[in-house]
Amino acid sequence: MFKKILIANRGEIALRIVRACKDLGVQSCIAYSEADANTTAVLEADERVCIGPAPSAKSYLDYARIIGAAVSRGCEAVHPGYGFLSENAEFARACADNDLVFIGPAPEVIDAMGEKSNAKQTMKAAGVPTVPGSDGPVESVEQARAFAEAVGYPVLIKASAGGGGKGMREVHDPADLQKEFDAARSEARVAFGNDEVYLEKLILRPRHVEIQVLADSFGHAAALCERDCSVQRRHQKLVEEAPSPALSDEQRAQMCKVAITAVREVGYVNAGTIEFLLDEDGSFYFMEMNTRIQVEHPVTEEITRTDLVCEQLRIASGEPMTVPDGGITVPSGHAFEFRINAEDPAHGFRPCPGTIKHLRLPGGPGVRVETHVYEGYTIPPTYDSLVAKIIVWGADRAQALARARRALDECEIEGIATTLPFHRDVVRNAQFASGIVYTDFIPEHMPEYFC
Amino acid sequence: MFKKILIANRGEIALRIVRACKDLGVQSCIAYSEADANTTAVLEADERVCIGPAPSAKSYLDYARIIGAAVSRGCEAVHPGYGFLSENAEFARACADNDLVFIGPAPEVIDAMGEKSNAKQTMKAAGVPTVPGSDGPVESVEQARAFAEAVGYPVLIKASAGGGGKGMREVHDPADLQKEFDAARSEARVAFGNDEVYLEKLILRPRHVEIQVLADSFGHAAALCERDCSVQRRHQKLVEEAPSPALSDEQRAQMCKVAITAVREVGYVNAGTIEFLLDEDGSFYFMEMNTRIQVEHPVTEEITRTDLVCEQLRIASGEPMTVPDGGITVPSGHAFEFRINAEDPAHGFRPCPGTIKHLRLPGGPGVRVETHVYEGYTIPPTYDSLVAKIIVWGADRAQALARARRALDECEIEGIATTLPFHRDVVRNAQFASGIVYTDFIPEHMPEYFC
Repeated sequence: MFKKILIANRGEIALRIVRACKDLGVQSCIAYSEADANTTAVLEADERVCIGPAPSAKSYLDYARIIGAAVSRGCEAVHPGYGFLSENAEFARACADNDLVFIGPAPEVIDAMGEKSNAKQTMKAAGVPTVPGSDGPVESVEQARAFAEAVGYPVLIKASAGGGGKGMREVHDPADLQKEFDAARSEARVAFGNDEVYLEKLILRPRHVEIQVLADSFGHAAALCERDCSVQRRHQKLVEEAPSPALSDEQRAQMCKVAITAVREVGYVNAGTIEFLLDEDGSFYFMEMNTRIQVEHPVTEEITRTDLVCEQLRIASGEPMTVPDGGITVPSGHAFEFRINAEDPAHGFRPCPGTIKHLRLPGGPGVRVETHVYEGYTIPPTYDSLVAKIIVWGADRAQALARARRALDECEIEGIATTLPFHRDVVRNAQFASGIVYTDFIPEHMPEYFC
Repeated sequence: MFKKILIANRGEIALRIVRACKDLGVQSCIAYSEADANTTAVLEADERVCIGPAPSAKSYLDYARIIGAAVSRGCEAVHPGYGFLSENAEFARACADNDLVFIGPAPEVIDAMGEKSNAKQTMKAAGVPTVPGSDGPVESVEQARAFAEAVGYPVLIKASAGGGGKGMREVHDPADLQKEFDAARSEARVAFGNDEVYLEKLILRPRHVEIQVLADSFGHAAALCERDCSVQRRHQKLVEEAPSPALSDEQRAQMCKVAITAVREVGYVNAGTIEFLLDEDGSFYFMEMNTRIQVEHPVTEEITRTDLVCEQLRIASGEPMTVPDGGITVPSGHAFEFRINAEDPAHGFRPCPGTIKHLRLPGGPGVRVETHVYEGYTIPPTYDSLVAKIIVWGADRAQALARARRALDECEIEGIATTLPFHRDVVRNAQFASGIVYTDFIPEHMPEYFC
């Protein structure tokens, strides 16, 4: 196991990694920006290095500063968390060039999965079902039109370098194709510096179901059940649960099997997630693979009683993972995660940075909290708005949902607007309670939150 | 299931019961003393009734007030928590006389188990191994001497109505018998209003291992593994863990089997605990049965993923329990509980009531907190000194212990002295880490805490 690692991230995930380090007896050194000097992760880490001012380009995205910090402090590895440099193959290569282990898959695998249309081809070749699509970049609106006519409308235009819903456009009417094609390219250019797009048939009323995978350097590959992340607002996940209420045991076993095949096929090592769309008749299609730990990983931890961040460290250090080969494909109970963001759900979820004047976190059986904030902490306007994750576990979905209501009611955050009122409404929504939730859940069943 | 219940207790266990009520959709009405008006349990309950001033005799022990509150508020049942009236058969009868369900076993069973020497006879008759003892009250020092000489010194003098170490005296030297016999009787008279004592052979270097049981009115009986509560200071439990590091799978299975037999034999219904002494060669002896939920119940909840308080409510309301008949006798992982008391471990654990000026509770994977206090709360001098319970779970004892170190380090309580520094020392003690811990652990291995 490593003696010391650098954490190149912030917020709750940085604290999550600090905690995993403590649990494994690994020294943690956190690289932080001037805006984050007083977050819990920085205070709890064994060592801290300021790597620059608040703007990410000058700190959390600055390879040289991060690698310099790791080398000067004698770290053996870098954990990139999620976001920032976590899926940046160039950064992973720069780590290797400086004799630092990048805690994630090999740069070639990040590249292969990061380029979305290429990833889809790779998965298709590995026998993973994929959405009918353009099988490569679409360079002109004429080419797009030909594809759309062949598979039938509606279609989805997606940025090849995409993620987080950016550069993604639905086209239901042929008359809108030109406009949406141009909009997707322009959005992709701004967001990713790359305007390449591709097309897919749009799956109607899909659920977002993703499989957590782990693989180590001893050839073991594991699937750890699925997460259902269908509750999204403009492609931003807000509530996640595991297992998916939509999957039968047979479907789960089949998706896990497919995911393991894919992991072996691409030579994947470390933790990752294979995202699928599940349609109403139970067919599933590969969407993309995320080559990092994800925000929603705790729901998987709760239903498999596995510490995914510890497994990442074990795997990266060359140890075998502790999860059995093949994985854990029978869930133990049910878990939900609620993302408490500093956003005002009554006003289009606009970000609301500010000072937390009062904070009471929930507790009791089945309740877990992941947060880097505390009473008196000022949320800077610079970064994403995630304040806390409330994770609940129950023996079944009904108990987990009851505990979710209780935990969300117990939680008190004053001084800033948060998504707590939204979540309290979600867990009391009859459609959500039924478990029949598609990605259009918010506009369809909670339209007051979609203005 | 009940529509509404009365909670006749305070502190963390009252909040624990409020939470279970919320999880089951049961209305909770809390009966509280004037000293407890601003505790979290009172604020979180659906309804609240002040039943009198701070002294327990005028509130938490006043049958008439409690039953009056329950009846006037339309409650169907009373949960007594632990301590106070939880093992008082007369109170259980008074509940029944007022058409209230007492959430616990039948009064006759409370009586049968509450009278310790009688309980031992009952268990012996049911085939449960017992410590060689006087088989009934010992009325004179001559009778005590005859017993001690027959079984050999050392012997233990125990109060028939005893509990919590009161009226309990060890006699290693025949010359001390008279003195200790008189002292035990006098202590028992003061503590329980009853000076009856009995004698047992003293088991040297015992571990305190107890089996959690559940039984419902459909004839199902379950054992839910054991808890090891060997870390005690003057018979007060401070750290509990489950499973016991001392038990093999075969011993666990055997103890669970014996416990289930005992439960069936005494016609036990609801949650209870059978306490055993485990000696160095692995033999175990019945010590006593506690006919209530115990402070340390969460460690069992964590390794069996069962909600014991919800099961108590299910059973008392006439529903079947959700735990399978026979129970859960294979633990899932390992759990510890640390009792954070408002006591100064540097000065003989003297109680330190006062105002909590700063509070930070631990979080992250595997960490659960049960507490009724918050920053700014003033702990009254009236009641027991339990401030919070920190419970950690890990896939094995090593991971649970690592998480315990992390959680105890994260916890910050300022303004009062607490047992946190003691616990931080426990989890770094090599003997504790080895798992080889007897009830003399503190005087033997942490003598600085035994002055």
